[in-house]
Amino acid sequence: MKKIKKIAIIGVGFMGGSLAIALKKTFPRIKVSGYARSSKSYSRLKGLRITNEVSRDIKEVVSNADIIVLALPIYAIVDAFKKIKSSLKKGAIVIDLGSTKKVIEDKAKKILPKGVRFVGCHPLCGSEKSGAQYSQKGLYENALCVITSSSKNSALTTVKSLWKKLGSRTVVMSPSKHDELVSTISHLPHCISFSLVQTVSKKSMKYVGGSYKDLTRISDSPAGVWADIFLSNKKNVLGDIKKFIVEIKKCVSLIEKGNKKKLTSWIESANKKHQLMPKNSCER
Amino acid sequence: MKKIKKIAIIGVGFMGGSLAIALKKTFPRIKVSGYARSSKSYSRLKGLRITNEVSRDIKEVVSNADIIVLALPIYAIVDAFKKIKSSLKKGAIVIDLGSTKKVIEDKAKKILPKGVRFVGCHPLCGSEKSGAQYSQKGLYENALCVITSSSKNSALTTVKSLWKKLGSRTVVMSPSKHDELVSTISHLPHCISFSLVQTVSKKSMKYVGGSYKDLTRISDSPAGVWADIFLSNKKNVLGDIKKFIVEIKKCVSLIEKGNKKKLTSWIESANKKHQLMPKNSCER
Repeated sequence: MKKIKKIAIIGVGFMGGSLAIALKKTFPRIKVSGYARSSKSYSRLKGLRITNEVSRDIKEVVSNADIIVLALPIYAIVDAFKKIKSSLKKGAIVIDLGSTKKVIEDKAKKILPKGVRFVGCHPLCGSEKSGAQYSQKGLYENALCVITSSSKNSALTTVKSLWKKLGSRTVVMSPSKHDELVSTISHLPHCISFSLVQTVSKKSMKYVGGSYKDLTRISDSPAGVWADIFLSNKKNVLGDIKKFIVEIKKCVSLIEKGNKKKLTSWIESANKKHQLMPKNSCER
Repeated sequence: MKKIKKIAIIGVGFMGGSLAIALKKTFPRIKVSGYARSSKSYSRLKGLRITNEVSRDIKEVVSNADIIVLALPIYAIVDAFKKIKSSLKKGAIVIDLGSTKKVIEDKAKKILPKGVRFVGCHPLCGSEKSGAQYSQKGLYENALCVITSSSKNSALTTVKSLWKKLGSRTVVMSPSKHDELVSTISHLPHCISFSLVQTVSKKSMKYVGGSYKDLTRISDSPAGVWADIFLSNKKNVLGDIKKFIVEIKKCVSLIEKGNKKKLTSWIESANKKHQLMPKNSCER
């Protein structure tokens, strides 16, 4: 990490802001520079002091950066490639924190200039919160960061080492494999959570307990970010929702038939399967 | 509460055990007696010391009790009515902690003898945990207890006052209204949680983060208890699952069409609706 002098963060929200805090703490000699699109976010970022500098000029922010982090919604990452491509220095590493990877990797290959390396990253510690004001110290500590790269090279080594130094665990897989995986463990749960909130009447909400609260926490997740996630991982998400509907219809059928024995077995198999979940994955 | 000398608990598991702890703390002069069905649970309850006495004779446990608490799965509560009916003293109050109320209230009316009063209770602070060893001090403090009673009488007043002294908030509604309510805020989330666990592959579980963890916490809930809940609230639960499937299919259709604007609006309306949830309901 000795050669890294400046890291630029485009999109200093919950994820980008928390990353800025972690970078400043871990690498006090690296300059962390944040891009603010609006004058409002410029003032807010200046006030929060989570980056060393804030600028409203995206080209200036990235021009002499060694690593550029795009912490934006999926299609905004693709737009950012276009905006920054001519200002990147040779040898710069561009990473993103997006929740789907295939679309981004494909666009990165097409848009980014030669001499610039792209490494897709997805730290599995997102939150329903959005905005730099919610930035969390220690968000990335012990979080699992999926790195998607089709080829081994020095940029991959640098990025891996960066996450490890921030306290994250890392795993490398292909963008397609990643998108399949997160569709089932993250995108499907979000779709379910949004749908559950839509189903329950406002009147009933007065009485909700722990189960409803747990299942709907992530329904606060930002709409713009999640529309992009669903659309950029369409095939996997639709496939998983369909599988889930098949499963919930099994439950419907067992209740309709009044088959207590089979219904009990079905729930028991869910109990047992859930017990297989490792206890040490990302704690958020 | 001055006239209450003995409270019997049939089913000293997570809910019944936590109630025993609360009763002993709040009413040190009342004797709390627990029934243990097997020799194994007898030894365990003796060891845990959460009741003043433990007995394997259900008739003896209830015979001179002023209040009898049935903390059992739904159909086991119905069976217990039959087992205890001839041993109850005149004026005794029978309450239950079951998660559906109509079936139980109907059976109580048919089975329990005259002179014994029944008041259905459902404290909305259940857990995925089961067993007396998980009993929690303070479980009922600030929890919302739904009391289902069709008529105002001194038994209702006594039971209400009991819960209030344990720190619970109370609300009175009809058994049918209760069953409709909990179907949507609790039974539907459980059905969803069990189905989600069944959908996700064992291999993917290695990578799960907060969203999957939150949505599947309650999939650990005891199978016997939940089969009874679904079956005893069949009509409401099936109706709510169907409404939920309609809702998730809206999401499917918006993703299929690639309609980013409408998909964003749909998620935004979930965001807004979730914000209406009161912050002070049962914290588990």
